[in-house]
Amino acid sequence: MEFIKEEELLARPKDWRTQFVNSLSGYKSANLIGTCSAEGLENLAIFSSVVHLGAHPPLMGLVSRPFAPGVERHSVENMRSTGQFTINQVHTGIYKQAHQSSARYSREESEFAAVGLQPFYVEGFGAPAVAEAHIQIGLRFLEAKPIEQNNTLFIIAEIDWVRYPREALADDGHILLHKIDTAALAGLDSYYQGQALERLPYAKPDKPLL
Amino acid sequence: MEFIKEEELLARPKDWRTQFVNSLSGYKSANLIGTCSAEGLENLAIFSSVVHLGAHPPLMGLVSRPFAPGVERHSVENMRSTGQFTINQVHTGIYKQAHQSSARYSREESEFAAVGLQPFYVEGFGAPAVAEAHIQIGLRFLEAKPIEQNNTLFIIAEIDWVRYPREALADDGHILLHKIDTAALAGLDSYYQGQALERLPYAKPDKPLL
Repeated sequence: MEFIKEEELLARPKDWRTQFVNSLSGYKSANLIGTCSAEGLENLAIFSSVVHLGAHPPLMGLVSRPFAPGVERHSVENMRSTGQFTINQVHTGIYKQAHQSSARYSREESEFAAVGLQPFYVEGFGAPAVAEAHIQIGLRFLEAKPIEQNNTLFIIAEIDWVRYPREALADDGHILLHKIDTAALAGLDSYYQGQALERLPYAKPDKPLL
Repeated sequence: MEFIKEEELLARPKDWRTQFVNSLSGYKSANLIGTCSAEGLENLAIFSSVVHLGAHPPLMGLVSRPFAPGVERHSVENMRSTGQFTINQVHTGIYKQAHQSSARYSREESEFAAVGLQPFYVEGFGAPAVAEAHIQIGLRFLEAKPIEQNNTLFIIAEIDWVRYPREALADDGHILLHKIDTAALAGLDSYYQGQALERLPYAKPDKPLL
Protein backbone atom coordinates (compact mmCIF):
# COMPACT_ATOMS: atom_id res chain seq x y z
CA MET A 1 0.00 0.00 0.00
CA GLU A 2 1.17 3.50 -0.85
CA PHE A 3 0.63 6.34 1.61
CA ILE A 4 0.05 9.97 0.67
CA LYS A 5 -0.46 12.93 3.03
CA GLU A 6 -2.61 15.96 2.16
CA GLU A 7 0.49 18.18 1.74
CA GLU A 8 1.91 15.83 -0.92
CA LEU A 9 -1.49 15.62 -2.62
CA LEU A 10 -1.68 19.42 -2.81
CA ALA A 11 1.80 19.50 -4.38
CA ARG A 12 0.75 17.25 -7.31
CA PRO A 13 -0.34 18.73 -10.66
CA LYS A 14 -3.95 19.94 -10.52
CA ASP A 15 -5.24 17.44 -13.13
CA TRP A 16 -3.62 14.50 -11.34
CA ARG A 17 -5.16 15.60 -8.04
CA THR A 18 -8.58 16.02 -9.65
CA GLN A 19 -8.49 12.48 -11.08
CA PHE A 20 -7.17 10.94 -7.86
CA VAL A 21 -9.57 12.60 -5.41
CA ASN A 22 -12.53 11.96 -7.71
CA SER A 23 -11.78 8.21 -7.56
CA LEU A 24 -11.69 7.88 -3.78
CA SER A 25 -15.39 7.57 -2.94
CA GLY A 26 -15.81 4.45 -5.12
CA TYR A 27 -18.57 4.00 -7.71
CA LYS A 28 -20.74 7.07 -8.21
CA SER A 29 -24.28 7.40 -9.49
CA ALA A 30 -24.55 8.65 -13.08
CA ASN A 31 -27.60 10.84 -13.67
CA LEU A 32 -28.74 13.42 -16.18
CA ILE A 33 -30.34 16.56 -14.74
CA GLY A 34 -33.01 18.08 -16.99
CA THR A 35 -34.10 21.70 -16.55
CA CYS A 36 -35.77 24.56 -18.37
CA SER A 37 -34.83 28.21 -17.93
CA ALA A 38 -37.46 30.84 -17.11
CA GLU A 39 -37.27 31.76 -20.80
CA GLY A 40 -38.04 28.17 -21.82
CA LEU A 41 -34.54 27.10 -22.92
CA GLU A 42 -33.87 23.41 -22.19
CA ASN A 43 -30.73 22.23 -20.44
CA LEU A 44 -29.27 18.78 -19.73
CA ALA A 45 -26.16 17.98 -17.68
CA ILE A 46 -24.57 14.87 -16.19
CA PHE A 47 -24.04 14.78 -12.40
CA SER A 48 -22.16 12.10 -10.42
CA SER A 49 -23.18 13.41 -6.99
CA VAL A 50 -26.88 12.53 -6.74
CA VAL A 51 -27.58 10.89 -3.37
CA HIS A 52 -30.58 9.45 -1.58
CA LEU A 53 -31.47 11.70 1.36
CA GLY A 54 -34.52 9.96 2.76
CA ALA A 55 -37.78 8.21 1.89
CA HIS A 56 -40.15 9.88 4.41
CA PRO A 57 -40.59 12.43 2.79
CA PRO A 58 -38.94 11.26 -0.48
CA LEU A 59 -35.85 13.48 -0.80
CA MET A 60 -32.77 13.52 -2.99
CA GLY A 61 -29.62 15.64 -2.88
CA LEU A 62 -26.84 16.63 -5.25
CA VAL A 63 -23.69 18.75 -5.26
CA SER A 64 -23.16 21.55 -7.79
CA ARG A 65 -19.76 22.21 -9.35
CA PRO A 66 -17.89 25.22 -7.87
CA PHE A 67 -19.22 28.70 -8.50
CA ALA A 68 -16.68 31.34 -9.53
CA PRO A 69 -16.92 34.83 -11.03
CA GLY A 70 -17.91 34.59 -14.69
CA VAL A 71 -18.79 30.87 -14.51
CA GLU A 72 -22.31 29.94 -15.62
CA ARG A 73 -24.08 27.06 -13.93
CA HIS A 74 -27.16 26.62 -16.09
CA SER A 75 -28.71 23.62 -14.31
CA VAL A 76 -28.59 25.23 -10.87
CA GLU A 77 -29.80 28.62 -12.12
CA ASN A 78 -32.75 26.90 -13.81
CA MET A 79 -33.64 24.82 -10.73
CA ARG A 80 -33.71 27.95 -8.61
CA SER A 81 -35.68 30.08 -11.03
CA THR A 82 -38.32 27.49 -11.97
CA GLY A 83 -38.32 25.33 -8.80
CA GLN A 84 -38.33 22.12 -10.86
CA PHE A 85 -35.90 19.62 -12.40
CA THR A 86 -35.65 15.98 -13.38
CA ILE A 87 -33.14 13.25 -12.49
CA ASN A 88 -32.69 10.55 -15.14
CA GLN A 89 -30.56 7.43 -14.64
CA VAL A 90 -27.82 6.94 -17.21
CA HIS A 91 -27.72 3.42 -18.68
CA THR A 92 -25.30 1.53 -20.90
CA GLY A 93 -27.22 2.57 -24.03
CA ILE A 94 -26.85 6.33 -23.45
CA TYR A 95 -23.63 6.81 -21.47
CA LYS A 96 -21.76 8.39 -24.41
CA GLN A 97 -24.52 10.94 -24.98
CA ALA A 98 -24.68 11.54 -21.21
CA HIS A 99 -20.93 12.21 -21.01
CA GLN A 100 -21.07 14.56 -24.00
CA SER A 101 -23.58 16.71 -22.06
CA SER A 102 -20.65 17.78 -19.83
CA ALA A 103 -19.18 19.88 -22.66
CA ARG A 104 -19.54 23.64 -22.19
CA TYR A 105 -22.42 24.42 -24.51
CA SER A 106 -23.74 27.97 -24.59
CA ARG A 107 -26.91 28.83 -22.70
CA GLU A 108 -28.85 29.08 -25.96
CA GLU A 109 -27.94 25.59 -27.15
CA SER A 110 -30.01 22.65 -25.86
CA GLU A 111 -27.83 19.70 -24.83
CA PHE A 112 -30.76 17.42 -25.72
CA ALA A 113 -30.35 18.26 -29.40
CA ALA A 114 -26.56 18.59 -29.22
CA VAL A 115 -25.97 15.10 -27.78
CA GLY A 116 -28.95 13.35 -29.37
CA LEU A 117 -31.42 12.64 -26.56
CA GLN A 118 -35.17 13.35 -26.54
CA PRO A 119 -36.91 15.60 -24.01
CA PHE A 120 -40.08 14.13 -22.49
CA TYR A 121 -42.63 16.22 -20.58
CA VAL A 122 -45.00 14.99 -17.90
CA GLU A 123 -48.25 16.97 -18.04
CA GLY A 124 -48.26 19.88 -15.64
CA PHE A 125 -44.53 19.62 -14.93
CA GLY A 126 -42.21 22.18 -16.53
CA ALA A 127 -38.81 20.46 -16.55
CA PRO A 128 -37.94 17.96 -19.31
CA ALA A 129 -37.09 14.33 -18.54
CA VAL A 130 -34.90 12.18 -20.80
CA ALA A 131 -37.20 9.95 -22.87
CA GLU A 132 -34.49 7.27 -23.28
CA ALA A 133 -33.79 6.93 -19.53
CA HIS A 134 -35.29 3.92 -17.74
CA ILE A 135 -35.76 5.78 -14.45
CA GLN A 136 -37.09 9.35 -14.72
CA ILE A 137 -37.82 11.44 -11.64
CA GLY A 138 -39.54 14.82 -11.36
CA LEU A 139 -38.44 16.91 -8.37
CA ARG A 140 -39.34 20.15 -6.62
CA PHE A 141 -36.33 22.24 -5.63
CA LEU A 142 -36.38 22.93 -1.87
CA GLU A 143 -33.08 24.46 -0.86
CA ALA A 144 -29.46 25.03 -1.86
CA LYS A 145 -27.08 24.94 1.11
CA PRO A 146 -23.81 26.75 0.46
CA ILE A 147 -20.69 24.65 1.06
CA GLU A 148 -18.38 27.54 1.92
CA GLN A 149 -15.24 25.40 1.88
CA ASN A 150 -15.15 25.20 -1.92
CA ASN A 151 -17.97 27.39 -3.28
CA THR A 152 -20.28 24.55 -4.18
CA LEU A 153 -23.93 24.01 -3.25
CA PHE A 154 -25.69 21.04 -1.72
CA ILE A 155 -29.11 20.95 -3.33
CA ILE A 156 -32.10 19.37 -1.60
CA ALA A 157 -35.23 18.41 -3.54
CA GLU A 158 -38.47 16.49 -3.03
CA ILE A 159 -39.72 13.83 -5.41
CA ASP A 160 -42.90 14.83 -7.25
CA TRP A 161 -43.25 11.81 -9.56
CA VAL A 162 -41.33 8.80 -10.89
CA ARG A 163 -41.50 6.90 -14.20
CA TYR A 164 -40.05 3.37 -14.09
CA PRO A 165 -40.33 0.07 -15.98
CA ARG A 166 -42.62 -2.45 -14.30
CA GLU A 167 -40.34 -5.40 -15.11
CA ALA A 168 -37.45 -3.99 -13.01
CA LEU A 169 -39.50 -3.69 -9.83
CA ALA A 170 -39.27 -6.38 -7.14
CA ASP A 171 -42.36 -7.08 -5.01
CA ASP A 172 -40.89 -5.25 -2.03
CA GLY A 173 -40.25 -1.99 -3.93
CA HIS A 174 -36.56 -2.60 -4.75
CA ILE A 175 -35.57 -1.78 -8.34
CA LEU A 176 -33.22 -4.30 -9.97
CA LEU A 177 -30.66 -1.96 -11.55
CA HIS A 178 -28.94 -4.70 -13.58
CA LYS A 179 -32.24 -5.39 -15.37
CA ILE A 180 -32.30 -1.82 -16.67
CA ASP A 181 -28.58 -1.58 -17.50
CA THR A 182 -27.94 1.29 -15.08
CA ALA A 183 -24.43 2.72 -15.48
CA ALA A 184 -22.06 3.99 -12.77
CA LEU A 185 -19.18 6.45 -12.91
CA ALA A 186 -15.68 6.12 -11.46
CA GLY A 187 -13.57 9.23 -11.22
CA LEU A 188 -14.41 11.86 -13.81
CA ASP A 189 -14.84 9.85 -16.96
CA SER A 190 -14.84 6.08 -16.47
CA TYR A 191 -18.14 4.29 -17.10
CA TYR A 192 -19.15 0.93 -15.63
CA GLN A 193 -22.08 -1.41 -15.59
CA GLY A 194 -23.10 -3.38 -12.53
CA GLN A 195 -22.81 -7.13 -12.08
CA ALA A 196 -25.02 -8.41 -9.27
CA LEU A 197 -23.24 -10.07 -6.35
CA GLU A 198 -25.98 -10.67 -3.81
CA ARG A 199 -28.94 -9.16 -2.03
CA LEU A 200 -28.46 -9.47 1.74
CA PRO A 201 -31.12 -9.61 4.47
CA TYR A 202 -31.57 -6.92 7.14
CA ALA A 203 -28.58 -7.21 9.51
CA LYS A 204 -29.10 -8.03 13.19
CA PRO A 205 -26.46 -8.16 15.92
CA ASP A 206 -27.33 -11.67 17.10
CA LYS A 207 -27.54 -13.12 13.57
CA PRO A 208 -24.17 -12.69 11.81
CA LEU A 209 -24.33 -13.24 8.07
CA LEU A 210 -20.94 -14.89 7.65
CA MET B 1 -43.31 2.77 -18.24
CA GLU B 2 -45.24 3.03 -14.98
CA PHE B 3 -45.99 6.44 -13.48
CA ILE B 4 -46.28 7.17 -9.76
CA LYS B 5 -47.04 10.52 -8.10
CA GLU B 6 -45.72 11.51 -4.68
CA GLU B 7 -49.18 11.13 -3.09
CA GLU B 8 -49.39 7.49 -4.23
CA LEU B 9 -45.83 6.87 -3.06
CA LEU B 10 -46.70 8.21 0.38
CA ALA B 11 -49.71 5.89 0.52
CA ARG B 12 -47.56 2.75 0.04
CA PRO B 13 -46.35 0.67 3.02
CA LYS B 14 -43.32 2.27 4.67
CA ASP B 15 -40.94 -0.61 3.86
CA TRP B 16 -41.95 -0.62 0.17
CA ARG B 17 -41.39 3.14 -0.05
CA THR B 18 -37.99 2.86 1.64
CA GLN B 19 -36.83 0.22 -0.85
CA PHE B 20 -38.22 2.08 -3.85
CA VAL B 21 -36.87 5.55 -3.04
CA ASN B 22 -33.48 4.10 -2.07
CA SER B 23 -33.18 2.58 -5.56
CA LEU B 24 -33.84 5.76 -7.53
CA SER B 25 -30.41 7.41 -7.51
CA GLY B 26 -28.74 4.42 -9.21
CA TYR B 27 -25.55 2.75 -7.98
CA LYS B 28 -24.28 4.09 -4.66
CA SER B 29 -20.81 4.09 -3.18
CA ALA B 30 -20.27 1.48 -0.45
CA ASN B 31 -17.91 2.67 2.28
CA LEU B 32 -17.12 1.77 5.87
CA ILE B 33 -16.75 4.70 8.29
CA GLY B 34 -14.24 4.05 11.08
CA THR B 35 -14.33 6.14 14.25
CA CYS B 36 -13.22 6.09 17.88
CA SER B 37 -15.22 7.62 20.73
CA ALA B 38 -13.62 10.10 23.13
CA GLU B 39 -13.39 7.15 25.54
CA GLY B 40 -11.47 5.09 22.97
CA LEU B 41 -14.28 2.74 21.88
CA GLU B 42 -14.00 1.76 18.22
CA ASN B 43 -16.96 1.97 15.83
CA LEU B 44 -17.47 0.85 12.24
CA ALA B 45 -20.55 1.47 10.07
CA ILE B 46 -21.45 1.15 6.39
CA PHE B 47 -22.60 4.29 4.55
CA SER B 48 -23.96 4.48 1.00
CA SER B 49 -23.98 8.27 0.81
CA VAL B 50 -20.29 9.21 0.59
CA VAL B 51 -19.77 11.74 -2.23
CA HIS B 52 -16.86 13.60 -3.75
CA LEU B 53 -17.19 17.31 -2.91
CA GLY B 54 -14.06 18.72 -4.50
CA ALA B 55 -10.35 18.21 -5.06
CA HIS B 56 -9.06 21.72 -4.29
CA PRO B 57 -9.06 21.41 -1.24
CA PRO B 58 -9.70 17.63 -1.14
CA LEU B 59 -13.17 17.33 0.42
CA MET B 60 -15.70 14.54 0.86
CA GLY B 61 -19.27 14.57 2.11
CA LEU B 62 -21.75 12.09 3.53
CA VAL B 63 -25.32 12.01 4.83
CA SER B 64 -26.16 10.70 8.31
CA ARG B 65 -29.26 8.63 8.98
CA PRO B 66 -32.13 10.55 10.63
CA PHE B 67 -31.75 11.70 14.21
CA ALA B 68 -34.71 11.10 16.52
CA PRO B 69 -35.21 11.18 20.28
CA GLY B 70 -33.56 8.15 21.86
CA VAL B 71 -31.71 7.12 18.67
CA GLU B 72 -27.91 6.78 19.00
CA ARG B 73 -25.72 7.68 16.01
CA HIS B 74 -22.31 6.45 17.15
CA SER B 75 -20.33 7.32 14.00
CA VAL B 76 -21.51 10.92 13.88
CA GLU B 77 -21.11 11.47 17.63
CA ASN B 78 -17.54 10.16 17.41
CA MET B 79 -16.67 12.31 14.37
CA ARG B 80 -17.87 15.39 16.20
CA SER B 81 -16.18 14.64 19.50
CA THR B 82 -12.78 13.56 18.09
CA GLY B 83 -12.74 15.51 14.80
CA GLN B 84 -11.47 12.48 12.89
CA PHE B 85 -12.77 9.49 10.94
CA THR B 86 -11.82 7.16 8.10
CA ILE B 87 -13.58 6.19 4.87
CA ASN B 88 -12.77 2.69 3.59
CA GLN B 89 -13.98 1.35 0.23
CA VAL B 90 -15.97 -1.88 0.45
CA HIS B 91 -14.79 -4.55 -2.03
CA THR B 92 -16.14 -7.91 -3.15
CA GLY B 93 -14.07 -9.73 -0.50
CA ILE B 94 -15.59 -7.89 2.48
CA TYR B 95 -19.11 -6.85 1.47
CA LYS B 96 -20.80 -9.35 3.81
CA GLN B 97 -18.81 -8.11 6.80
CA ALA B 98 -19.50 -4.52 5.70
CA HIS B 99 -23.26 -5.14 5.52
CA GLN B 100 -23.25 -6.82 8.94
CA SER B 101 -21.84 -3.59 10.43
CA SER B 102 -25.29 -2.03 9.83
CA ALA B 103 -26.76 -4.13 12.67
CA ARG B 104 -27.57 -2.17 15.84
CA TYR B 105 -24.67 -3.13 18.07
CA SER B 106 -24.40 -1.46 21.48
CA ARG B 107 -22.01 1.44 21.95
CA GLU B 108 -19.64 -0.78 23.94
CA GLU B 109 -19.32 -3.45 21.24
CA SER B 110 -16.77 -2.83 18.46
CA GLU B 111 -18.17 -3.67 15.03
CA PHE B 112 -14.62 -4.52 13.92
CA ALA B 113 -14.56 -7.55 16.22
CA ALA B 114 -18.27 -8.33 15.76
CA VAL B 115 -18.10 -8.58 11.95
CA GLY B 116 -14.50 -9.80 11.63
CA LEU B 117 -12.49 -6.90 10.22
CA GLN B 118 -9.16 -5.57 11.52
CA PRO B 119 -8.60 -1.98 12.68
CA PHE B 120 -5.48 -0.31 11.28
CA TYR B 121 -4.02 2.88 12.76
CA VAL B 122 -1.91 5.44 10.91
CA GLU B 123 0.63 6.97 13.30
CA GLY B 124 -0.60 10.23 14.79
CA PHE B 125 -4.20 9.69 13.59
CA GLY B 126 -6.82 8.62 16.14
CA ALA B 127 -9.53 6.98 14.01
CA PRO B 128 -9.16 3.36 12.89
CA ALA B 129 -9.06 2.39 9.19
CA VAL B 130 -10.13 -1.03 7.90
CA ALA B 131 -6.95 -3.05 7.27
CA GLU B 132 -8.67 -5.22 4.62
CA ALA B 133 -9.91 -2.23 2.53
CA HIS B 134 -7.98 -1.39 -0.65
CA ILE B 135 -8.65 2.34 -0.36
CA GLN B 136 -8.36 3.84 3.13
CA ILE B 137 -8.80 7.57 3.75
CA GLY B 138 -8.19 9.59 6.91
CA LEU B 139 -10.36 12.72 7.23
CA ARG B 140 -10.72 15.74 9.47
CA PHE B 141 -14.33 16.57 10.32
CA LEU B 142 -15.14 20.17 9.30
CA GLU B 143 -18.87 20.70 9.60
CA ALA B 144 -22.27 19.03 9.89
CA LYS B 145 -25.00 20.93 8.06
CA PRO B 146 -28.49 20.13 9.37
CA ILE B 147 -30.95 18.97 6.70
CA GLU B 148 -34.07 20.19 8.45
CA GLN B 149 -36.43 18.47 6.01
CA ASN B 150 -35.78 15.01 7.50
CA ASN B 151 -33.51 15.47 10.54
CA THR B 152 -30.36 14.21 8.85
CA LEU B 153 -26.95 15.87 8.63
CA PHE B 154 -24.72 16.56 5.64
CA ILE B 155 -21.17 16.06 6.90
CA ILE B 156 -18.22 17.83 5.27
CA ALA B 157 -14.66 16.64 5.84
CA GLU B 158 -11.16 17.27 4.50
CA ILE B 159 -8.80 14.48 3.43
CA ASP B 160 -5.75 14.15 5.69
CA TRP B 161 -4.15 11.05 4.13
CA VAL B 162 -4.89 8.19 1.72
CA ARG B 163 -3.60 4.60 1.52
CA TYR B 164 -3.99 2.93 -1.88
CA PRO B 165 -2.46 0.10 -3.89
CA ARG B 166 0.15 1.25 -6.45
CA GLU B 167 -1.06 -1.23 -9.09
CA ALA B 168 -4.56 0.33 -9.30
CA LEU B 169 -3.27 3.84 -10.07
CA ALA B 170 -3.22 5.10 -13.67
CA ASP B 171 -0.47 7.57 -14.66
CA ASP B 172 -2.91 10.48 -14.62
CA GLY B 173 -4.10 9.90 -11.05
CA HIS B 174 -7.26 7.89 -11.88
CA ILE B 175 -7.80 4.77 -9.74
CA LEU B 176 -9.01 1.71 -11.66
CA LEU B 177 -11.79 0.48 -9.39
CA HIS B 178 -12.28 -2.84 -11.19
CA LYS B 179 -8.65 -3.75 -10.42
CA ILE B 180 -9.35 -3.50 -6.69
CA ASP B 181 -12.78 -5.19 -6.78
CA THR B 182 -14.63 -2.14 -5.45
CA ALA B 183 -18.28 -2.93 -4.64
CA ALA B 184 -21.35 -0.73 -5.13
CA LEU B 185 -24.74 -0.72 -3.43
CA ALA B 186 -28.19 -0.56 -4.98
CA GLY B 187 -31.11 0.25 -2.73
CA LEU B 188 -30.59 -0.77 0.87
CA ASP B 189 -29.07 -4.19 0.56
CA SER B 190 -28.10 -5.20 -2.97
CA TYR B 191 -24.36 -5.50 -3.67
CA TYR B 192 -22.74 -5.22 -7.08
CA GLN B 193 -19.30 -5.27 -8.64
CA GLY B 194 -18.32 -3.04 -11.53
CA GLN B 195 -17.65 -4.17 -15.08
CA ALA B 196 -15.70 -1.56 -17.04
CA LEU B 197 -17.44 -0.13 -20.11
CA GLU B 198 -15.13 2.65 -21.28
CA ARG B 199 -13.07 5.65 -20.21
CA LEU B 200 -14.13 8.71 -22.20
CA PRO B 201 -12.08 11.80 -23.09
CA TYR B 202 -12.88 15.31 -21.82
CA ALA B 203 -16.04 16.42 -23.65
CA LYS B 204 -15.99 19.49 -25.90
CA PRO B 205 -18.94 21.11 -27.71
CA ASP B 206 -17.31 21.04 -31.14
CA LYS B 207 -16.10 17.43 -30.82
CA PRO B 208 -19.08 15.12 -30.27
CA LEU B 209 -18.11 11.63 -29.07
CA LEU B 210 -20.78 9.71 -30.94
